[in-house]
Amino acid sequence: MDKFMKAAIDEAKKGLAAGGIPIGSVLVIDDRIVAAGHNQRVQRGSAILHAEMDCLEKAGRLKAADYQRATLYSTLSPCDMCSGTVLLYGIGKVIVGENKTFQGPEAYLKERGVQVTVLNDPECISIMEQFIADKPELWNEDIGV
Amino acid sequence: MDKFMKAAIDEAKKGLAAGGIPIGSVLVIDDRIVAAGHNQRVQRGSAILHAEMDCLEKAGRLKAADYQRATLYSTLSPCDMCSGTVLLYGIGKVIVGENKTFQGPEAYLKERGVQVTVLNDPECISIMEQFIADKPELWNEDIGV
Repeated sequence: MDKFMKAAIDEAKKGLAAGGIPIGSVLVIDDRIVAAGHNQRVQRGSAILHAEMDCLEKAGRLKAADYQRATLYSTLSPCDMCSGTVLLYGIGKVIVGENKTFQGPEAYLKERGVQVTVLNDPECISIMEQFIADKPELWNEDIGV
Repeated sequence: MDKFMKAAIDEAKKGLAAGGIPIGSVLVIDDRIVAAGHNQRVQRGSAILHAEMDCLEKAGRLKAADYQRATLYSTLSPCDMCSGTVLLYGIGKVIVGENKTFQGPEAYLKERGVQVTVLNDPECISIMEQFIADKPELWNEDIGV
């Protein structure tokens, strides 16, 4: 297991332990984690703090050159919002834990020049399958359906 | 002047008065403003609180049916991040103050079924032209360049 995806999974588990939606994310620049985050819909009543957004917000105000050589890890395929944020900042690479339980606009990211790698990691899949079975309404709210 | 765009401009001016980036947004549901926001990059050191994001965060956790009949007003053409958020939640209509000083992926929004109306309001243009001339580096940071 990639150590950075492992860190993203740890974030997802932190979220779950706090009663939240178990999706985690880390931002890596120059082989170092500069920020980590997890979905905050429940914990902070947030409509915008998906894991990737929480992570990027915690990273703070970075320079364009920093984003451009960064890699964003997420335990789940980034949705339209999070994918749009990747495009805004020109983040070059996205590593996705799994896209079996939900798939964002990966093809559009690729068209726009982002390198997208999907691991389909069994632990990431299992965490989301269990969560969706347990709390389908909360999950639907998080993806706008 | 549309009263809702007027409210979005008032938000942009609040942001400017606080030393921030002068972009404002309001979310309208059933002919009523349910939330208003403005760019918080400077004020809160935020990488994700563009005006539209600040507005949607202030609106809180809404139901899918609420988003779907909502209209999002922004003084400036929404960037990739904010456009992605419109798509995530299925917001049906976006009213844009202007797209002369910056243009987000309006064509993509339309392809995905969003009704986009661009006013090219002289006051919106003037506010942004003055700001970009005054603080080009801050502006570039906000759009990831």
